[in-house]
Amino acid sequence: MVIAFESLYSDIHGRYGKLTVGKKTIKTPALLPVINPHLQLVTPKEIQSMGVEALITNAYIFSQSKQFRERALSEGLHKVLDFDGVIMTDSGSFQLSVYGEVSTTNTEILSFQRDIESDIWVPLDIPTSPASDRQTTERELSITLQRLAEAKEVFGRDAPLAGPVQGGCFTDLRERAGREVTDLGFSFCPIGAVVPLMESYRYRDLVSVVMAAKRTLSPSACVHLFGAGHPSMFALATAMGCDLFDSAAYALYAKEGRYLTTHGSFKINELADLPCACTVCRSHSAEELRTAPDRERLLALHNLYVTLAEISRIRQAIFDGTLWELVDERSRGHPQLLAGYRAFLKRTESLERYDRVSKRRFFYRGDESCSRTEVFRYQQMLSRLHIGEHVLVAFDGGMRDEFNDTLFFKPPFGPYPKELKETFPIGPSEIPDWDDAMVRKGCRGIKMLIESHPDSQFVVSCNPRWETIVRQELGDIEVCNDQV
Amino acid sequence: MVIAFESLYSDIHGRYGKLTVGKKTIKTPALLPVINPHLQLVTPKEIQSMGVEALITNAYIFSQSKQFRERALSEGLHKVLDFDGVIMTDSGSFQLSVYGEVSTTNTEILSFQRDIESDIWVPLDIPTSPASDRQTTERELSITLQRLAEAKEVFGRDAPLAGPVQGGCFTDLRERAGREVTDLGFSFCPIGAVVPLMESYRYRDLVSVVMAAKRTLSPSACVHLFGAGHPSMFALATAMGCDLFDSAAYALYAKEGRYLTTHGSFKINELADLPCACTVCRSHSAEELRTAPDRERLLALHNLYVTLAEISRIRQAIFDGTLWELVDERSRGHPQLLAGYRAFLKRTESLERYDRVSKRRFFYRGDESCSRTEVFRYQQMLSRLHIGEHVLVAFDGGMRDEFNDTLFFKPPFGPYPKELKETFPIGPSEIPDWDDAMVRKGCRGIKMLIESHPDSQFVVSCNPRWETIVRQELGDIEVCNDQV
Repeated sequence: MVIAFESLYSDIHGRYGKLTVGKKTIKTPALLPVINPHLQLVTPKEIQSMGVEALITNAYIFSQSKQFRERALSEGLHKVLDFDGVIMTDSGSFQLSVYGEVSTTNTEILSFQRDIESDIWVPLDIPTSPASDRQTTERELSITLQRLAEAKEVFGRDAPLAGPVQGGCFTDLRERAGREVTDLGFSFCPIGAVVPLMESYRYRDLVSVVMAAKRTLSPSACVHLFGAGHPSMFALATAMGCDLFDSAAYALYAKEGRYLTTHGSFKINELADLPCACTVCRSHSAEELRTAPDRERLLALHNLYVTLAEISRIRQAIFDGTLWELVDERSRGHPQLLAGYRAFLKRTESLERYDRVSKRRFFYRGDESCSRTEVFRYQQMLSRLHIGEHVLVAFDGGMRDEFNDTLFFKPPFGPYPKELKETFPIGPSEIPDWDDAMVRKGCRGIKMLIESHPDSQFVVSCNPRWETIVRQELGDIEVCNDQV
Repeated sequence: MVIAFESLYSDIHGRYGKLTVGKKTIKTPALLPVINPHLQLVTPKEIQSMGVEALITNAYIFSQSKQFRERALSEGLHKVLDFDGVIMTDSGSFQLSVYGEVSTTNTEILSFQRDIESDIWVPLDIPTSPASDRQTTERELSITLQRLAEAKEVFGRDAPLAGPVQGGCFTDLRERAGREVTDLGFSFCPIGAVVPLMESYRYRDLVSVVMAAKRTLSPSACVHLFGAGHPSMFALATAMGCDLFDSAAYALYAKEGRYLTTHGSFKINELADLPCACTVCRSHSAEELRTAPDRERLLALHNLYVTLAEISRIRQAIFDGTLWELVDERSRGHPQLLAGYRAFLKRTESLERYDRVSKRRFFYRGDESCSRTEVFRYQQMLSRLHIGEHVLVAFDGGMRDEFNDTLFFKPPFGPYPKELKETFPIGPSEIPDWDDAMVRKGCRGIKMLIESHPDSQFVVSCNPRWETIVRQELGDIEVCNDQV
């Protein structure tokens, strides 16, 4: 295979990996800045000097350009753009979605991508709008899938082809698309036509659509979230298993005088201060940036720096096993992103299956942390615990001789035997003062233990402060006061 | 007064302001980097080029230094350090807290600060450890207050004197200190000896201590949180009304190979990627930074950039009225900081009094947002609403003719008449899908409305999903199903 993906570390469904394209390798997650040959606020060479290993440009624009077409064909894309990393090319699908038609065909634009020596070629798929009805979506998906089959047939199994996953807002169609793209042998799979969802803050729908596609794509496929350029949602998308993003936002936003941050965007006129560590922001005041003759370029640079920094932050979080914490941090930045995050948390059971075993730590960040995979997995494990006939769950940690076993209690996980005190997640978890949500969740752990051990009898000893919750969750269990 | 403070914008207790010291002015909140004349990883001139307007150095070190004492006396501190902004000098109190004694007196070290032309002088106060008992704390506080009185007496009311607030962990002593420092006429007030609290993550105690001092300090005093250098807690401290921070951390951490972020610190050996937008991190890989010959200096630069960026972020948040959101974002970065934040949220009633009237927006970020000042204030206002005899609170927004008034419902605020639909906080608030916590809080708004309008009769129309919460909060109120 000319395109291969390897995951080195993982967290939730996020992967810290390596994408190999021919003889070139890039680290993932990665951002592919979008290069418009007609508008280069920042040159590919400058972008490469920032550590960028891959970029994306539009083959259709090249094919239609008097200025660039022949040069690209004769000199190759890498020489024209002066960039020797990985170059992915789009096919005109975007223009198709905007203008309704393009003056090329699937095999024509793929041949052009081959001839200009692009590293990753995209067939002329149809990016079906999320507003489309089922009939349209199905019809367009069939056309897309035919074109993907055609691409494989004409250019061979080893051509560096991307297999876009369409299907609009219908999760079963996204599942079908993922399955067929996998069956066709694609190992590089963009999830397409999600930009309208992101533009209208429909993050709950984005979670449905991406998770549906991921369910049927091969776990060894590299997944590109097509058109995702705002750093505020990279962490959530990574947690869902997306490996690549592309950003035209850095330049488009700059042209509109907009300033990207990981917690949203600002119009440059709204800024009293520049809330960023990048070299542009540390060497200009807000007023200086606003009135700079090269304002667009400076904004584009800033936008790139924060976006690339976020990719590094995500990579570090996967490496550490703290991606849940980063997703939590970013997702609270906009209430609709929080809605998407909460929808994502409802999928804990399926997320847990791929999540890694041990992590750097577990930091409790609020009630949402009760739904993390680590809590789910720990409570599942409780059924495998060997315990005696008379069991005390001691909230305060005090042991009593009249019981065969004393278990301790750490919310939101639940009961634990002393042997697990230092192991993940009990040991390396840090929680603030106990709150209702975490104690309630911990009681559900006790409940799972009780239900899976019908031959044991249980007593909970706790501070009266928690008795109501214990009784609500555990019914008529015997409770004694640990302050006696 | 030679030192004057002016607040231009405010949010919670945070101020976006201007501190005037003689003829110099600095923007606040501000970070004063600590300069050790013997160890300059980054020079004051470089620091000034990053936009820093004030720094702090230690007069006691100068007074004891063969290399610097005479030069400082003859050329002045600004020339020796090559910095023409505001220079604040500490008095040796830190050395007192570490070594138990210093070889100077209060008036001697103050005279020295005057003679080397420091812009802000600190008396030789006693930084009482938070571990000290009440008797020790009281005794040391009395000495500190005597020395402050002496300083005013010897150097005059108009000397640029700082008046540190001590009192250890005893909130009544911090209150007393704040009151007496104010009575002595100090308008620049460091809150002292809080470093041990921050080093041991005792953020709940930090909130108690700072809020106690703030209660009795003059609202027009500029408040410096002495020794606070980690950017993760600047937002919370600002929300409590702290205006200045000083950071030795940028250099000390760099010497220990530690990398600051707004969400905690990393040892440089733990980093696989550099999760930051600054020029150091965008031009080095983690491995390059680790092995760079000037690693300490590069780390110090990075640490300064992120710390200064956080100050800008805070200033922008105050300007926008989004400081609650920033405090929420940062405080979830460590469970003990979350504990401090939750303790701070319990003080909503007193915080509300100084909070500003209108803000850019209200973004719901989780259950903690229910305790924001804006929610408290809105619900207080409900008692002033004029309403008729028969009132419908319609969760779904549908009006019915049989009622004199129909109010709508927006959680977490509660009921609102249509006239308030567009005004703050009802209009510019954005919430995710309704959750239990916000609906419960909104019901408390209905309850306040009911209790303050005993002559009106109320009916709530809501989706059955919310009926349990409505009944729990509002007892035997009439509820009808809004889906009929």
